[in-house]
Amino acid sequence: MSDINHSSQQKRLKKRVFKKIDNDEWSIEELAQSIINGDRKALASGITLVESRANKHRKKAAQLIQLLLPNTGKSIRIGITGVPGAGKSTWIEAFGKKLVQEDHKIAVLAIDPSSSLSGGSILGDKTRMEELSHHQNVFIRPSPTAGTLGGVHRMTRETILLCEAASYDIILVETVGVGQSEVMVRGMVDFFLLLALTGGGDELQGMKKGIMELVDAIVINKADGDNKVRATKARNEYRQLLHYLQPATKGWQTKAITCSAIKGEGIVEIWELIERFIEEISESGVMEDRRKSQSLDWMKQMIHDRLFDEFMNIDGRKEELRRLKEGVIVGEVSPAEAVETLFTP
Amino acid sequence: MSDINHSSQQKRLKKRVFKKIDNDEWSIEELAQSIINGDRKALASGITLVESRANKHRKKAAQLIQLLLPNTGKSIRIGITGVPGAGKSTWIEAFGKKLVQEDHKIAVLAIDPSSSLSGGSILGDKTRMEELSHHQNVFIRPSPTAGTLGGVHRMTRETILLCEAASYDIILVETVGVGQSEVMVRGMVDFFLLLALTGGGDELQGMKKGIMELVDAIVINKADGDNKVRATKARNEYRQLLHYLQPATKGWQTKAITCSAIKGEGIVEIWELIERFIEEISESGVMEDRRKSQSLDWMKQMIHDRLFDEFMNIDGRKEELRRLKEGVIVGEVSPAEAVETLFTP
Repeated sequence: MSDINHSSQQKRLKKRVFKKIDNDEWSIEELAQSIINGDRKALASGITLVESRANKHRKKAAQLIQLLLPNTGKSIRIGITGVPGAGKSTWIEAFGKKLVQEDHKIAVLAIDPSSSLSGGSILGDKTRMEELSHHQNVFIRPSPTAGTLGGVHRMTRETILLCEAASYDIILVETVGVGQSEVMVRGMVDFFLLLALTGGGDELQGMKKGIMELVDAIVINKADGDNKVRATKARNEYRQLLHYLQPATKGWQTKAITCSAIKGEGIVEIWELIERFIEEISESGVMEDRRKSQSLDWMKQMIHDRLFDEFMNIDGRKEELRRLKEGVIVGEVSPAEAVETLFTP
Repeated sequence: MSDINHSSQQKRLKKRVFKKIDNDEWSIEELAQSIINGDRKALASGITLVESRANKHRKKAAQLIQLLLPNTGKSIRIGITGVPGAGKSTWIEAFGKKLVQEDHKIAVLAIDPSSSLSGGSILGDKTRMEELSHHQNVFIRPSPTAGTLGGVHRMTRETILLCEAASYDIILVETVGVGQSEVMVRGMVDFFLLLALTGGGDELQGMKKGIMELVDAIVINKADGDNKVRATKARNEYRQLLHYLQPATKGWQTKAITCSAIKGEGIVEIWELIERFIEEISESGVMEDRRKSQSLDWMKQMIHDRLFDEFMNIDGRKEELRRLKEGVIVGEVSPAEAVETLFTP
């Protein structure tokens, strides 16, 4: 199945879902119940609904989430980031297989269009997580392709809730770290993991600004064969560095460890580490505090986005803003004056 | 003069300024011209105007800034941060004295109410920057005390422009690093300097998250007497650490250096460093790019703040938001549903 076929198939599915929902053939209550019952098609349709940017769908999406709310919040939410080439797909495949062996139901989501999940290949015959994607207890959903990163962020947060309502008890959120995406992922997960490259100082230097202070563990992948010595060296360098940096989670010293996803080595240890993390922060109350403040931050963000969307929706506003921005750039208009102009009827 | 007297004196001054402006006895054009002419009282009054939170003053403040705009942008804007006890006041005193000796006109502003400039002591008889504050080419303004940090941020940005119009060619913006204040300072200065404590690993560990990746230089103060060896050791540790972190400014490796403000040692070197920095980033175009994107970010921030202010200004909105937040915290209402409720008339 080619990417193009996959994409047009997606579009047809979307059309069918929206037709049913818009004509009230499929009530939101029914949809919610089917999701709770574990119907994968219903889950996929629900996600399609929350990904819609149409005004009429937003209300229904909120209604759906509200109905599912009592069934949410019980999963472990894990974020995974790492540059392309760090081996994220292979790592998620190895990690996911370990989890399904232990009877977990896992959902894999992506937060940006350029993640390893995206581009349609995931459902094609050459998927990068082949074994995992065929497992009945695994649900894989690539990133929504439409909209800004902020919009993708909102959709992914809501998709997490839908997956939880469908009894997925471990949610993996993947990002390659475009723009502010790591900050967004940090704002929606319990445990955040950086998959790093092996190697010396130069590779550490290439790391994104502030990323080490956002994550709970740095996992140096590909610690196998000739690479093992370098990986261990890198791990020690990270440990030394982490000693000086503030941890992302109160009461938890960020860890640096090695693993080999391809050989399946160190995967069990990472899962044990995450379980210990969840236990510790649940006991200390940090987990509850984090989830609460994540919800409030999310709410605040949505209010700001909505206000800005409505403001920009006025006829001629975009053109006016563009013109004023140009004035600000060339130094003819002060930002204060530009804002006054925008707000003067 | 006690703090209380100072404060009531400030209030009287404010009242007088507003009376004149509100009654159009003092036109914005006259005020602008007096600021450009270097009239210190006019400058102080102009700052009082931009610090006002009244709606009627916002329009006039924007008008004032617009009039001054052609005379702005020509200073070097330097941010200074450091925990209380790092010796910021002494350092600014030493640095400022060096600059006025070279015939610079300097303005010292603070971004948060708890900075060393604040609390009224600055204009009292026991000021911490005694010599500096009496110099004719120095203008010191404590932080505006009213409003949120975001509001203080806006006011400080506009105050920078007013000082530039009054021919101050070096602007120092001080913060003790409350909340997001360092990010705000980074967004309004060209060069950002962290004044750090001497000492070993433990003190480095106490450093605020991400701060090292925001600054262009880490200055270890109090490198004198018994402390000199420890300061040098700390500097070397910082250098090692900085090697792994991404620099705040493209093309400029963040520096770590020692100085002794109290003995006046290393102050000249810091000024030379800043001059070199400005020269290099001006040539590379990074300076222009930074200033442009700072203005656009500022404009965007103001639009968002304004929209949120207007939204919250509706009768009963605050109470409604508080109630919805509680619902979100206890898990009864989803953030999405809460936002829908807020936006449903």
